[in-house]
Amino acid sequence: MEVQQVLHMNWGNGETSYASNSNLQKLVITKAKSMVIGSISDLYTTNFPRCLRIADLGCSSGPNTLLVISEIIEAIVETCHQLKRTTPEFQVFLNDLPSNDFNNIFKTLPAFYKQLKKEKGEKFGLCSITGLPGSFYDRLFPSSSIDFHHSSYSVHWLSQVPITVESNKGNIYLARTSPPSVLKAYLEQFQNDFSLFLSLRFKEITPGGRMVITMLGRRSEDPFGKEGYFWELLSKSLNDLVSEGLIEEAQVDSFNLPFYMPSRKEVEDVVCVDGSFYLDQLDIFDVNWDGSDDDDNKGFMFDRFISGKKVAKYVRAVAEPLIACHFGDAIIDILFKRYIEYVSEHLSKEEGKYVNFVISLRGK
Amino acid sequence: MEVQQVLHMNWGNGETSYASNSNLQKLVITKAKSMVIGSISDLYTTNFPRCLRIADLGCSSGPNTLLVISEIIEAIVETCHQLKRTTPEFQVFLNDLPSNDFNNIFKTLPAFYKQLKKEKGEKFGLCSITGLPGSFYDRLFPSSSIDFHHSSYSVHWLSQVPITVESNKGNIYLARTSPPSVLKAYLEQFQNDFSLFLSLRFKEITPGGRMVITMLGRRSEDPFGKEGYFWELLSKSLNDLVSEGLIEEAQVDSFNLPFYMPSRKEVEDVVCVDGSFYLDQLDIFDVNWDGSDDDDNKGFMFDRFISGKKVAKYVRAVAEPLIACHFGDAIIDILFKRYIEYVSEHLSKEEGKYVNFVISLRGK
Repeated sequence: MEVQQVLHMNWGNGETSYASNSNLQKLVITKAKSMVIGSISDLYTTNFPRCLRIADLGCSSGPNTLLVISEIIEAIVETCHQLKRTTPEFQVFLNDLPSNDFNNIFKTLPAFYKQLKKEKGEKFGLCSITGLPGSFYDRLFPSSSIDFHHSSYSVHWLSQVPITVESNKGNIYLARTSPPSVLKAYLEQFQNDFSLFLSLRFKEITPGGRMVITMLGRRSEDPFGKEGYFWELLSKSLNDLVSEGLIEEAQVDSFNLPFYMPSRKEVEDVVCVDGSFYLDQLDIFDVNWDGSDDDDNKGFMFDRFISGKKVAKYVRAVAEPLIACHFGDAIIDILFKRYIEYVSEHLSKEEGKYVNFVISLRGK
Repeated sequence: MEVQQVLHMNWGNGETSYASNSNLQKLVITKAKSMVIGSISDLYTTNFPRCLRIADLGCSSGPNTLLVISEIIEAIVETCHQLKRTTPEFQVFLNDLPSNDFNNIFKTLPAFYKQLKKEKGEKFGLCSITGLPGSFYDRLFPSSSIDFHHSSYSVHWLSQVPITVESNKGNIYLARTSPPSVLKAYLEQFQNDFSLFLSLRFKEITPGGRMVITMLGRRSEDPFGKEGYFWELLSKSLNDLVSEGLIEEAQVDSFNLPFYMPSRKEVEDVVCVDGSFYLDQLDIFDVNWDGSDDDDNKGFMFDRFISGKKVAKYVRAVAEPLIACHFGDAIIDILFKRYIEYVSEHLSKEEGKYVNFVISLRGK
């Protein structure tokens, strides 16, 4: 499986699409906002570039695609207002793999520009939004041409499925039953990919440029911690389908996700060894699997079945293309029905939390 | 009718799509090649920028979209080879209206990059191709950020249908029966649009930057010359449909194309009055309506029906969205069947030629 050809969020605007199931990612963007705004405001007020060149790596296609850009523009315009300066021009590069639905984003741009002009007035300068298809594990931009790199919920996707000498029998991601060699392969793939990512971005960033990455991670050093349990429940659902003769055991054994959730130390080590960037700040926050936020929902009556359905929708929206490519389309509905049951059952016993890292970096 | 929302080439790869009916545009690009290459080579060897930033305005979506870019890269690599210099980085912005099928272009990029690497070797630097949706009658790029603007077969499309006080009765473009006020409205719309286009591009171009435009034009000053006759035959076909009760007479009377073919003098006058650019060169060449080239096809047995079909396909591929938006989808097949007959009849009596301008400009 060529990950770059298969990996994309579910297309369109239908019930199982990413566009209709991205509230979780929206919440994560909201929670990371202060670090994003802090970093770019700091960059702007240090250099005052005439044009702010911003890249969003792994932008996807949905209601969140322009959210970060809106927040950034809002903050810079406010800063300029306070400092009585003319606003800079904005050049934005939305990046994702070539299979991403860019047409869907582009169709929304006329309304976005209209709204921008309405809110910010005629004096607001240029905002030029472009799409750049390509893998962020390759060079994307000319040398020293981007002031601010941003990436949300993308860098936990690896460039390829780790090459393992032993089978990760019955699992699709790291689990307690994974052999040590599989763990080693996953960790090395992450180290190589993240290091490559940093060195490529460093070549593209202007002197004094910044980068903020939000990604899934682990709180503990234990590689088999409960952070990956949402994938284990999907393995369990697939193994049920094996028992029922709907798929072959060998199919599950040969399927691994190109995905890794590092620990804080694993991230810090790669940043340190690569040496292109200073790590300014690394914050950790949780969000519930179902995209709800404990801070905002203290009075919320929890229904494990409703939550289970939501979790399954989020996971399906991001993982369906990979799973369908390996196992075929036919099993998808039944697989995620089973998954809802396992997730609901799990949530009746304990919480399900995604652990998120927001990492602020500065080019050396 | 909001031109920017309706105007686009026919989507997809089917029989009536622009992608399958763009050999004419390919021939035009080939014939304009020497001026494009001359201009950009001159620019490159004057400034030797580390990164060449190129915009293609009205790139559409089909086999020609990357043709000019390939030719430019080829020429610059050859120049660098001769001068024993490292090749520059290339940053390419493919621009068209937001309704253009950018996904279709983006899907072809991995193969394009692979081929580039294969042909030019590992030492060839970066080529970063982006899509920029928007009207070229608005600002598209940050100030002083583009070295070379290119546009082929796009600038003859106006920003809007000219606003006329009298009806252009029975016509969809300028014709001998058009009232003088309609001619005036068309000319003024072209002057305003082309002047706006030049002043916007000037803001975006780097010092010493260049622009090459290929567009349809007229050889004579007569505004009703035979250059526009391919539209007159379409008017005739529409009027037939009126006689047959398939569409209303008022529908034809209220439909005008947002299109203008200027004379050489009209182009020169706008460039002079606007004052942003020097006009370095303006070449004129013809191509046959059916996309054949007399230079290459001297022994070609001419069949007016085959030619008529080809002409109709080209015209349909570019004009169908506008016509369907005004008259509805239902009449399209019958309309273009009639059009084939008129074009074939015309070609049995006289030649049908598009007159093309290639205009090389230099920022002041």
